[in-house]
Amino acid sequence: MSGFAGVDVGGGGIRARIESGGEIAYGEDSAPLPRTEGRVDLDRLAARIASVVGDAARVPGRLDGMAVGVTGLPGLVREPEALWRPLGERFGLGTLVVAGDMVTTHVGALGFRPGVVVAAGTGVITLGTDLDRVWNQSDGWGHLLGDHGGGAWIGAQGLQAALRAHDGRAGGSPALLEHLTARFGHPLDLVALVYESGSPAHHLASFAPSVADAARAGDPVARGIWTEAGRQLGQTAVAAASGLDPVFSWGGRVFEAADLLMEPFQGTVRDLLPQARFTPPGGTSADGALALARAAADGGVRPRHPYLYVYAASRSRSAAAAAPPPPRTR
Amino acid sequence: MSGFAGVDVGGGGIRARIESGGEIAYGEDSAPLPRTEGRVDLDRLAARIASVVGDAARVPGRLDGMAVGVTGLPGLVREPEALWRPLGERFGLGTLVVAGDMVTTHVGALGFRPGVVVAAGTGVITLGTDLDRVWNQSDGWGHLLGDHGGGAWIGAQGLQAALRAHDGRAGGSPALLEHLTARFGHPLDLVALVYESGSPAHHLASFAPSVADAARAGDPVARGIWTEAGRQLGQTAVAAASGLDPVFSWGGRVFEAADLLMEPFQGTVRDLLPQARFTPPGGTSADGALALARAAADGGVRPRHPYLYVYAASRSRSAAAAAPPPPRTR
Repeated sequence: MSGFAGVDVGGGGIRARIESGGEIAYGEDSAPLPRTEGRVDLDRLAARIASVVGDAARVPGRLDGMAVGVTGLPGLVREPEALWRPLGERFGLGTLVVAGDMVTTHVGALGFRPGVVVAAGTGVITLGTDLDRVWNQSDGWGHLLGDHGGGAWIGAQGLQAALRAHDGRAGGSPALLEHLTARFGHPLDLVALVYESGSPAHHLASFAPSVADAARAGDPVARGIWTEAGRQLGQTAVAAASGLDPVFSWGGRVFEAADLLMEPFQGTVRDLLPQARFTPPGGTSADGALALARAAADGGVRPRHPYLYVYAASRSRSAAAAAPPPPRTR
Repeated sequence: MSGFAGVDVGGGGIRARIESGGEIAYGEDSAPLPRTEGRVDLDRLAARIASVVGDAARVPGRLDGMAVGVTGLPGLVREPEALWRPLGERFGLGTLVVAGDMVTTHVGALGFRPGVVVAAGTGVITLGTDLDRVWNQSDGWGHLLGDHGGGAWIGAQGLQAALRAHDGRAGGSPALLEHLTARFGHPLDLVALVYESGSPAHHLASFAPSVADAARAGDPVARGIWTEAGRQLGQTAVAAASGLDPVFSWGGRVFEAADLLMEPFQGTVRDLLPQARFTPPGGTSADGALALARAAADGGVRPRHPYLYVYAASRSRSAAAAAPPPPRTR
């Protein structure tokens, strides 16, 4: 017996869907993206993926294929083929797809149909594609340079508003300061946590649910942060739509707060592109990865540098050779 | 012959003023703040201070006193007394003052008079004090949680506007994208630099002069960033004014762009506090440190945890004992 695995690697953890003998198994962990000098550490990542997939219930010893959607590709992932050897050997894979998480989120949401999909988890990346000629990326620049409207952005805005209240500056939110104190203690304990950890975006994003709680309880500053997040995500979506039918979908944990986000998101898209249509996502990034794993085994997935790479056991050299050099630029 | 040294340690380098025999000598270096796991690395910092001060022209072998104003105190500096042994031994110091850079900037600007001083370099920290009973701090939370209107904030806003233009998102600035490309190359090279270095704030702040150039050339997005920076700094200043005569001054490299910043800064302060008065700074943070070094030798500087510590050779134990434990909270 064998099967397929789809894996989503986000800033806050790994989620896997494994299909075998007509049944679906699930696995996940919760930890920051492993990094070495800022880049994604692919050796440690391969070990975590092997552990999450290998420990999932009813997983056969061998898998026909796997697809991994990983945040930070392109940009912070060098040599995605470094996942092939450890995962290929561990599971006896026939094929491995390594893609940016915006690709797996796209396939999960729209199931190989053309359109624009906004992926908003810890970070934000948007892909408008027909998986053929058109590949429009928007945002995805990380918590210091972009990712506007994502979990780390929302959390940072919330923490900044809390500290404004602490200082007595304009624009502060006493309600968010209460949340900060309950979660982190004194502000200087938060400072130590955020700056001394190697994963500030993860800690910033961990405050986004508190900003949602405060918004639902009526705090106007917190509501304003979510409204602005929706507006930012809408602007990012529209920027990725050129050359495509204006079909929009979404994925990622930030969109779980649809009550706070969906109206400003869709309103902003419609303001900029009146003919826009919205399609609720058919599945998650892990579902999309599972679909890519299946399709790649049938030879139905074409590599696309720097978004999507395919490695195969019987022709791993030629597939690797077909891919351009490691992504430094796009 | 002996003398005094005042040292300013900022996010972008060290500046020293040494007074000996009625003459003033200068020294400086340009490098990010040395860090270990996010905290300021005081051993490496002491070595850099010893090098900058020791190499300055006409420095005697021995100094009566020194004062060091360091960014990140309180918050990212643990055990400020760790500077005492290496610097005390190297220069045969009688007294050493270690203070937050907002204290040295305050003394440099207002010369021991009460008031509010905004220090805006890579980061932003504002101190309203009479150096006696009133010690109001505002902002100083670092580039992820605050420092609104500082060099890293301005640079980050500029880079984000450049990347918006790159993506075709709303709010982008093609002029800033040209500056980005000229300075950093392709956006993915910037991503690598900012996330893979240990000093993101330093790299973000390095773009602030480009944002100033674009603003002066008429780019409306860049002008808006500087106007908002001034507004933020004004709000931060007013929050530190309670219990004091409303006298305001400033320091730090961001204020060198007075043509872009001063009007929105002073306008915001006046809107919130119509009786505000403004006093151009009498000197820099290094000048303030030099004044503190002299005053401490006369016994005229009182320690104030967690802003200001005094160590003395003849009574170093009692002075250290008079200071509370290392700052974890304030």
